[in-house]
Amino acid sequence: MIIRKEEQKITINEHMRGGDGSVQLRQLLAPEQFCGHGRLFSRLELAPGCSIGVHPHNGESETFYVLQGTARFNDNGEERPLYPGDVAHTPSGQFHSISNAGQEPLVLVALIVNS
Amino acid sequence: MIIRKEEQKITINEHMRGGDGSVQLRQLLAPEQFCGHGRLFSRLELAPGCSIGVHPHNGESETFYVLQGTARFNDNGEERPLYPGDVAHTPSGQFHSISNAGQEPLVLVALIVNS
Repeated sequence: MIIRKEEQKITINEHMRGGDGSVQLRQLLAPEQFCGHGRLFSRLELAPGCSIGVHPHNGESETFYVLQGTARFNDNGEERPLYPGDVAHTPSGQFHSISNAGQEPLVLVALIVNS
Repeated sequence: MIIRKEEQKITINEHMRGGDGSVQLRQLLAPEQFCGHGRLFSRLELAPGCSIGVHPHNGESETFYVLQGTARFNDNGEERPLYPGDVAHTPSGQFHSISNAGQEPLVLVALIVNS
């Protein structure tokens, strides 16, 4: 099946996980399309100054793939920059946060799979 | 953990699934990072004229997210074009193929999750 760009579900999440501003989430797969093995495959866009607050993942991993922009990524307590093409992987039992550290939109693909 | 763009494993797959030319696969996650719930999260790049041949997926789904270029996608027997931002999802038990139908590189994110 094809899910055209114009048909994809878009959600605006304000202060996501306690972060600043808002995050636009474009759903690429619905949770039920993971058949119980995961729950999120989405394109995320954060305007300059926006962030997703610190949160853990338990029983699942989350992976970010940076398509555009510059991020500041809290990798289980260590702050590091991310650039286009970089991947940040948070296994079960660890925590992270991410913010737009640049002047252009930060665009990511996010994936949550069970662990 | 961070997997920098420069550190990602790149594979060139010739005549992938019987297709034309070659496909460059940039590994975003290693199979073991799926903890048994999937096996592939990669950026794929196909030059003009290149393709991945027809093949089924059983016991798993594959999803393509088009980042750049124009594709011709065989969706379980039906040929359809794909454009940037479109998603093509092939559940378990179905088959697909994909080719670069344009004059610029076709760039995709591919995800294989168990079903």
